Order: sequence, then structure tokens, then C-alpha cells
Amino acid sequence: MSQTGLRGVAAGKTAICTCGAGGHMLHYRGYSIESLAAGAAFEEVAWLLMRGELPTAAELEGYRKKLRGLRGLPLALRETLERIPASAHPMDVIRTGVSMLGALEPEGDFSNQTDAADRILSALPGIIGYWHRFATAGERAETETDDDSLAGHMLRMATGEAPTAEKRRAMDVSLTLYAEHEFNASTFVARVVAATLSDFHSAIVAGIGALRGPLHGGANEAAMALIGRFDDAESARRGVLGMLERKEKIMGFGHAVYTIRDPRSDIIKEQARILSSGHPRARLLEISEAVEEVMRGEKKLFPNLDFYSASSYHFMGVATSLFTPIFAVSRTTGWAAHIFEQRADNKLIRPGAEYIGPEEREFVPLEKRG
Amino acid sequence: MSQTGLRGVAAGKTAICTCGAGGHMLHYRGYSIESLAAGAAFEEVAWLLMRGELPTAAELEGYRKKLRGLRGLPLALRETLERIPASAHPMDVIRTGVSMLGALEPEGDFSNQTDAADRILSALPGIIGYWHRFATAGERAETETDDDSLAGHMLRMATGEAPTAEKRRAMDVSLTLYAEHEFNASTFVARVVAATLSDFHSAIVAGIGALRGPLHGGANEAAMALIGRFDDAESARRGVLGMLERKEKIMGFGHAVYTIRDPRSDIIKEQARILSSGHPRARLLEISEAVEEVMRGEKKLFPNLDFYSASSYHFMGVATSLFTPIFAVSRTTGWAAHIFEQRADNKLIRPGAEYIGPEEREFVPLEKRG
Repeated sequence: MSQTGLRGVAAGKTAICTCGAGGHMLHYRGYSIESLAAGAAFEEVAWLLMRGELPTAAELEGYRKKLRGLRGLPLALRETLERIPASAHPMDVIRTGVSMLGALEPEGDFSNQTDAADRILSALPGIIGYWHRFATAGERAETETDDDSLAGHMLRMATGEAPTAEKRRAMDVSLTLYAEHEFNASTFVARVVAATLSDFHSAIVAGIGALRGPLHGGANEAAMALIGRFDDAESARRGVLGMLERKEKIMGFGHAVYTIRDPRSDIIKEQARILSSGHPRARLLEISEAVEEVMRGEKKLFPNLDFYSASSYHFMGVATSLFTPIFAVSRTTGWAAHIFEQRADNKLIRPGAEYIGPEEREFVPLEKRG
Repeated sequence: MSQTGLRGVAAGKTAICTCGAGGHMLHYRGYSIESLAAGAAFEEVAWLLMRGELPTAAELEGYRKKLRGLRGLPLALRETLERIPASAHPMDVIRTGVSMLGALEPEGDFSNQTDAADRILSALPGIIGYWHRFATAGERAETETDDDSLAGHMLRMATGEAPTAEKRRAMDVSLTLYAEHEFNASTFVARVVAATLSDFHSAIVAGIGALRGPLHGGANEAAMALIGRFDDAESARRGVLGMLERKEKIMGFGHAVYTIRDPRSDIIKEQARILSSGHPRARLLEISEAVEEVMRGEKKLFPNLDFYSASSYHFMGVATSLFTPIFAVSRTTGWAAHIFEQRADNKLIRPGAEYIGPEEREFVPLEKRG
């Protein structure tokens, strides 16, 4: 028997999300991803995921205000970030940053879990930006920005500039699209940690560690590396055909739970289209479309969320190495919702294993070995 | 349907360990825990778990030397540990410490995984001790000790003193007993993280986060808190009877996978007995035995590894708050073996979920809510 990775095995119950129904559907708490991306700001989605219902206007205003107030980083955390070299993997940085935040500001009782979640969500863009700008430019960035939205704050932290309305809107949509995806590997890890009744930060830190893996969160960076190699649509077409011939892996296409299309792809592609207008590297959109055309024609594969996220983030001015950390900011809302849900009806998650090792054998003392 | 926690579901294959066979057996790579605890040093067990076979005398000598050479902590890590207050949870400290180590000394290619494992194993006692002694006494401890064994180094780091041969032997046995236990929650978490092809440190950090939970690694500290309340055997007997009457939870008894006895309990109890001799709080052993007697008589429950580990560690002079971190040092060997095994035959671990949330519902724009 080969490893099955628990594919299709229900590891628990959830009221947060369904993905893959009909081969192309994604719903958060019953709302289609299309309706949320079109009509709700990311803060509304975060509230919905963590609390179960969309916020009222008053609740949303209060929530935005609360999140804005939680952007400052404690000195000990900033001093830690300053000690991580520019060569470090950005996911190692945020894993360490959130872990340190948990050591400095522990959750305490589980009754504080919502505050812990909001704090991590608000602090993460600053953790990313503070380290990135200190490591690359020696600059001690102010993380307490006055940006209204988390999307605007995220972009300012990542790029050092006040974003345009278009970029802010694109980041907001992207954060909504990446927020939640049922029992994916990082969310499942967060739930297994939460099920030992460990603290909130340990569960998030574990999720970050899982998202870091190239089989999970790294695909948008790989998609950027792909499209970044080509100068125009024609060379992209030829290049990808060559890669397919050599059986090289093309990242950003197909999906384990969607069979017809990834509902998030059209949404982020539209944002890429809007952002490309007037951008010096606008051609990246044509290149992406050429790659899509070849993949559809040759492999019958559709682009997933990661593929057009790559050009979108690039048009927003975000460094490629920060794509996966931004995914982690967004997914923190999904992880948080699942940690709350796990705690509310908890049982230790402890599977069994199939033993394939040696039968009982007699111990051989050191002097008789070799 | 209530949550089942994947109990009894085979989540993968392993050649590392079987536990619970016959209701009382534990084997690492085919060797009984009794034979390993009696005949092998912890370094031999670590080698066995990670490499599949017991080391020869030459291999063991080389391995001890390698581990001794990896005890120093980088300056950036020490400076980070100095910024974590004495009030922090020690598991938050080692979670942050290992994460920082990964940011400073990344694994790189998986061909370095054995070195990454050995480095973490060697650095962890220093991470614990450096922080503990800086936070409690303002002292910058030298972590590059000349102790021959990891057990001796661990004790010196935890207590600040050169251990006696008896204490060193007891710690060595304890490290062997805690090293590995099949697909327990923290090991499973480490495997799920490894299955995304993330780095070694992310998997270990996730395991630490899971072990931190009171349903997993915290039981030896809870057992210490229990026995620490009583002055003598008679008051312990009366006290535990009272707790049982009030249906309070007594930690350190019974086990999910052992039905007859925990094979590790007799082994660590013998160490507690040896260490108690001449110890000013020797009475803790009588107290423990009185608690055991009541639990066997009233609840038909046997002590598990955690119960007599409590008095053993106390007799060794280890602060109670460091019991679970020492468990983590030991279990790092099991986690490492499982990460190697997962990588060698990998498939993403991504279970399904049973959806119990709302059906599809129509999006309501912000202005119409409330």
C-alpha cells in the first residue's frame, strides 16, 4: 500500500467552508467566493470566517478600528527581526516573529482567543515589512500606519509606499481569495496542534511552517519565476511547450479539489488585467495568458488561484519572496476560525499507523556490535 | 457524529515504532523499550531511531563527538533568548529558539537533514538553559560544556551544576523513554508539515507547539503539581481519595494505547527510587507510591511514564517548568526519524472534512445588514 495522505478521509467536522463542490465552487460560511470577492472587504470576510456571520456596518467599523490599533510591534520583537539576515527565508521570519509574539504576549486563557487572532492578523504585515525593509535597506519602518484597511497596510509594509486605490482593491480581493480552504495541510496542522489544547500562537506557527512547503503555499512564487523568464507571449508559448516536452513541472495549474475550474482564478485574473494597464511590465499579462492557453490546449489544465496571483502581486510592486508570507496573512483568518472551531468541540487528533518495520529483535550490547 | 480524532485510522506507514501491542509493549525499531533503557545510552537510541540500526562503538564515538561540537548558540539566537521574559512559557521559548535557529542556519537542501536534526538536538538543552538562567539569574551561561553525554549536558544546562553519575544515568534513561511514540499528536503534526516539503525546522517547531498542549506533553508537570501538594503518604492517600470523590482529574495515570501497563513506568520508577535515597524530599517517592496505590485500588488505573518522571526530575534538581521542554529534547529524535521517513516516501497529507455549516446563502451588502 502506498501512502494515501488521508485523501478523502473525514478528519473532523467543520461549518466554515466547502470547496470543490460541483468541481468549481468555493463557499465561506455559505457565501460564494464570487459574491464575497465582489461585495465584501477583507475585514468583512475575516469577521465572517471567525465569527460565523457578516458584520453589520457598526461591527465592521469597530473591527477596523480594533485591527488598526494592533499594528505596533513590541521592541523585543523588532530587535529579534533585526537579527535575522536578509538571506533568510521570509517564512522563517514570520514563523519566528509570531512565535516570539506569543512568548511576549501569551494568549493566556482561551477566552482571549479572538484578541490573539486579531493581534496576529494585525501584526503580521508589520513583521514582514519591518524585517524586509531593515534587512534590505537598514530602515526601521514605522508599522503603526494610518491605512484604513489591512490591504492598504499590507501593501505599504511590503513596498514602503502608499498604495493606489486600484492596488489596494486588488490586494483586498487577493486576501479574500486566499483566506480559507477547508482542511488543507496548514489548516489541518493548526487544528491538530489546537486539539492538544496548546495555545493559539503554537497553532498559527505550525500552520505557517506547513504553508512554507512548496507543495502548499509556494506555488505563486513558482508561477512568478515561470512568467518572469519570458519576454513576450510568443517566447512564453514556445518556452512552455518545450517545458512540457521535457516533462518539467509548470506551477499554478490544476487543483486537487477543483475539477472544472478554480473559481478564484477568474477573479484574480481580472485584478491582474486592471493593474496591468499602464504598468511598465504590462506584457506579463499577455505572457500569462499565453501560458494559460498552452496549458489548456496541451494539458487540459486550468489556472488556479496562484497563477494570476503572481502577476497581480508583481503589478502591485510586491517582491516575489513576500508572496507566500502575504498568503499567510490572509490564511491566518481561516486558521483562526478552525482553531476556534476545534476548541469548541475538541478531541485529541491522534491517528494510527501501519507498521512496516522489523519484528521484535534481541538487543545487542555495544561491545558485540559491528 | 462526534469528533473521532482519527482514532484507529492509519494515517501512514512507519518502520520506527510500535506501541501498545499486547497492552503493555513498546518497541523502537524492533527493540523493546526495556532492553534499550537497560543497555543503551540515549545517543545510541537517537542513532537507532534516526538511522534504523544501533551504532557500532566507532559510530557511537563519532556521534557523541559530533553532538558535543554542536552545542554553541549563535549570538543572534542568544540575544533573542535574552529578550524573552522570565514569565514566558518555556515551551514558547524553545519554539521561538528553534524557529530562530532555522532562520539563522537554514537546512537548505534535504541532503542536510541529518545535520539539521543533530544540530537542533544538541542546541536545545542550551536554548533551555541559556534562557532559564538569563531570565531567572541574569547569567549568560556557557552552553559549550564538556559533558560527554547529552544527558549530562541537559542536566548542567537545566540546573547550572555538574550532575552526579546517578542523576546523569536517570536523565539518560528518561530521554530514552520519552524519545518516540509512533503517531502521537506532535509527531503526526511534524509529519504533516514535512509532507508539504517544508523545511526541517518548521516541522520540529510545529511538533513543539503540539507537545506544549496539556493533553499531550504537560502531564509530567501536572503530576509534579499533584505530589508537591502533600506532606506525607497518609495525607496523599486522603487527598487523592477526596479528589476522586470530587471527580477531579488526576494526571499521570492510564494511557490511550496501553491497557495493561505503561512499560516505561516501572523503569522510571526505579530511577526515582535510586535518586530518592538521601534526598531531602525523599518522601516524594512514598507520596507517589501512595497515590499509585489509591489509583490502582479505586480506579484500576496504572501510572504512565509521566507520573514517576515528575519525582525523578525533581530529585535531579530540575525546575518543574522545564519538564516539558526536556520531553521536547528527547522527542526531537523521534520527530526527526518521522520527518526523514515521511520525506523518503512522501505524499501531501490533506484529509477531508464533514461539512455541517449553512447551505448556500445569498450575499447581503453591508448597507442592508443589521
